[in-house]
Amino acid sequence: MKKGCPYGTHRVIEPKGALPQPALKINNDMEIYDNEILIDVQTLNVDSASFTQIRQEAKDNIEEIKSIMKSIVEDKGKHQNPVTGSGGMLIGTVEKIGPSLEGKTDLKVGDRIATLVSLSLTPLRIDEFVEIRKDVDQVDIKGKAILFESGIYAILPDDMPENLALSVLDVAGAPAQTAKLVKPGDTVVVLGGTGKSGMLCLYEAKKRAGVTGKVICVGSRDITIERTKKANLADYYIKANATDAVDLLEKVKEITNGEMADVVINTVNIPNTEMSSILMTKDGGIVYFFSMATNFTKAALGAEGVGKDINMIVGNGYTKDHAAISLNLMRESEELRRIFTELYA
Amino acid sequence: MKKGCPYGTHRVIEPKGALPQPALKINNDMEIYDNEILIDVQTLNVDSASFTQIRQEAKDNIEEIKSIMKSIVEDKGKHQNPVTGSGGMLIGTVEKIGPSLEGKTDLKVGDRIATLVSLSLTPLRIDEFVEIRKDVDQVDIKGKAILFESGIYAILPDDMPENLALSVLDVAGAPAQTAKLVKPGDTVVVLGGTGKSGMLCLYEAKKRAGVTGKVICVGSRDITIERTKKANLADYYIKANATDAVDLLEKVKEITNGEMADVVINTVNIPNTEMSSILMTKDGGIVYFFSMATNFTKAALGAEGVGKDINMIVGNGYTKDHAAISLNLMRESEELRRIFTELYA
Ligand SMILES: NC(=O)c1ccc[n+]([C@@H]2O[C@H](COP(=O)([O-])OP(=O)(O)OC[C@H]3O[C@@H](n4cnc5c(N)ncnc54)[C@H](OP(=O)(O)O)[C@@H]3O)[C@@H](O)[C@H]2O)c1
Ligand SMILES: NC(=O)c1ccc[n+]([C@@H]2O[C@H](COP(=O)([O-])OP(=O)(O)OC[C@H]3O[C@@H](n4cnc5c(N)ncnc54)[C@H](OP(=O)(O)O)[C@@H]3O)[C@@H](O)[C@H]2O)c1
Repeated sequence: MKKGCPYGTHRVIEPKGALPQPALKINNDMEIYDNEILIDVQTLNVDSASFTQIRQEAKDNIEEIKSIMKSIVEDKGKHQNPVTGSGGMLIGTVEKIGPSLEGKTDLKVGDRIATLVSLSLTPLRIDEFVEIRKDVDQVDIKGKAILFESGIYAILPDDMPENLALSVLDVAGAPAQTAKLVKPGDTVVVLGGTGKSGMLCLYEAKKRAGVTGKVICVGSRDITIERTKKANLADYYIKANATDAVDLLEKVKEITNGEMADVVINTVNIPNTEMSSILMTKDGGIVYFFSMATNFTKAALGAEGVGKDINMIVGNGYTKDHAAISLNLMRESEELRRIFTELYA
Repeated sequence: MKKGCPYGTHRVIEPKGALPQPALKINNDMEIYDNEILIDVQTLNVDSASFTQIRQEAKDNIEEIKSIMKSIVEDKGKHQNPVTGSGGMLIGTVEKIGPSLEGKTDLKVGDRIATLVSLSLTPLRIDEFVEIRKDVDQVDIKGKAILFESGIYAILPDDMPENLALSVLDVAGAPAQTAKLVKPGDTVVVLGGTGKSGMLCLYEAKKRAGVTGKVICVGSRDITIERTKKANLADYYIKANATDAVDLLEKVKEITNGEMADVVINTVNIPNTEMSSILMTKDGGIVYFFSMATNFTKAALGAEGVGKDINMIVGNGYTKDHAAISLNLMRESEELRRIFTELYA
């Protein structure tokens, strides 16, 4: 059996020396190396920024969506959207475990798991499309995938439906990071607070900011704002276009009496929202860019351009215990669980 | 006289509602609004990632470089490289000050200043190229530029040559942020430590990390490494290709006895160095991406892909007092001043 590198570099076809995530093409042959895990895939949860782009390109036609997804995997050996660069994650059943992982992993054949590494670096083969649930970015397939030795995963909990767990785990990094960033008394804006990761962030922000804090939700549609309001996830709600920086600046200024936000969490799934995030933040404050549609130079030069001394953080999808922290929100909050079950499970 | 917005939105031609930095095209008509400052430009300091790209495209031909620069400004009304998205900064003389800035600014007509906002949002007109100093990314021109009300600047100091000040101010954010991030005893890697911003970061990192710290410089050429060594800017030197993540991982592992870095500062001017930066960092550590060639998704998904719980920071070009902090390095360190004078002034 062939010996693999923990990071999966042995699967990289092009360019040589790259890691699987930035690689243009990886090997998706399903014969495992000694330190790999083979997964029988059931559902892909495509990253929201990626799926939004694919739906647009496909003009929302199901067959067209399938054909785009298929050709991405054929080209790259992984489901990495060539426009957004992002992936998503998957759930499935452990089918084989490489012998050199024995004693190193708590997994056994037959375990139901979610991979917590991006699809953008996961060797994948799609044999058949079973169902496309396009409003929740979920795609049931028949197919196989490989998890590398350094790849993280979560065993699916038995006290909630799998699709519910999948939808929460997809954005697990966001609430876990929110928990770290928000302090009592903070003013927090969640840009895209009406979305999947956004609602989890709002809940976590409210818990951390406490009674002396202010949590502001920005969404773009009445229906999503109403839903968020009903669940009482924020203290204030703004309906606005997230790309309209000056309009949002004025609205946040009014709610905060000109003080602006200590922490802005960006969870939108569309481009060109860097400046809105920056202008809403007070000097010394933090912008957490969870959105995969974020552009690095627009953020860096945008803040410089308006002379804002703020700390801008790249939304690392991983943070310690993020799976446990985010899944627990479904146990902690009946409201969140109700909404997530309705929407995604 | 027309009234302007502090952020310069009044100059945006396309798309409507955008701010000048992300805008595709801005108005570079040199008739000022009531809150603008007109600058008679002397030298452009083109951002290193941008100039590297332009030189490659021009196959290093001076006339071709001019023609690319000219067409960028004609297309966009500003010098924003369409590939890298980045700009640079400029020095010149204050020619006119909008009446509504009176009492609000300490500038007067005739002052020699450097703008500290990116060229990627600065209305610019190039009338003539005077000299292209292609090895230091500096271009002398005849032309005019506009500084917005929210735009930051530094009055050029009288105790050093202007080109020296220009080269330091171009990367002022980097050493000032290093000063904030590095703590005594830290292990720090500066990826691109042999470059302009890199050397300033090394110096500042060594000062902050102190005798119990370890400062490691990564460069790709013998000549630049020798220069940095001679000035004793780091404790260890690695010659490597910054895009080769696995090679660098091994080299940093050896120097740090497997502990890896608390802080990695990325100041290279080429793409695909996100994974190297991430793999060098210990769990809980910080990567500071100053490089304008950084790709957001590659950083976010790359860290997740290898399960690294690290804090990744977008290199905001601005931080409080960055001009004063960085210029002072030229007074504090004879060695740095000597090298910078030789190379850039
Ligand atoms: N590793 C990672 O860092 C990671 C992992 C997963 C996801 N992500 C990223 O996180 C982001 C959010 O994912 P998600 O699953 O939470 O997406 P989602 O449920 O689709 O939510 C998107 C949010 O964006 C808002 N939005 C869209 N267009 C808007 C506009 N023009 N103005 C204002 N708001 C607008 C939506 O508000 P309305 O519905 O009210 O319009 C909604 O609140 C995506 O960019 C995704 O790529 C990152
Ligand atoms: N607002 C901001 O955040 C801001 C402002 C200004 C600049 N920047 C960015 O900061 C970065 C550095 O600017 P600078 O003026 O300091 O540039 P610079 O002087 O040209 O330095 C570039 C550095 O990258 C290194 N490098 C290039 N290719 C390499 C490779 N293949 N392997 C290893 N090292 C490599 C060079 O090392 P060798 O010479 O040894 O090869 C050098 O140390 C640029 O990306 C620039 O865009 C950002």
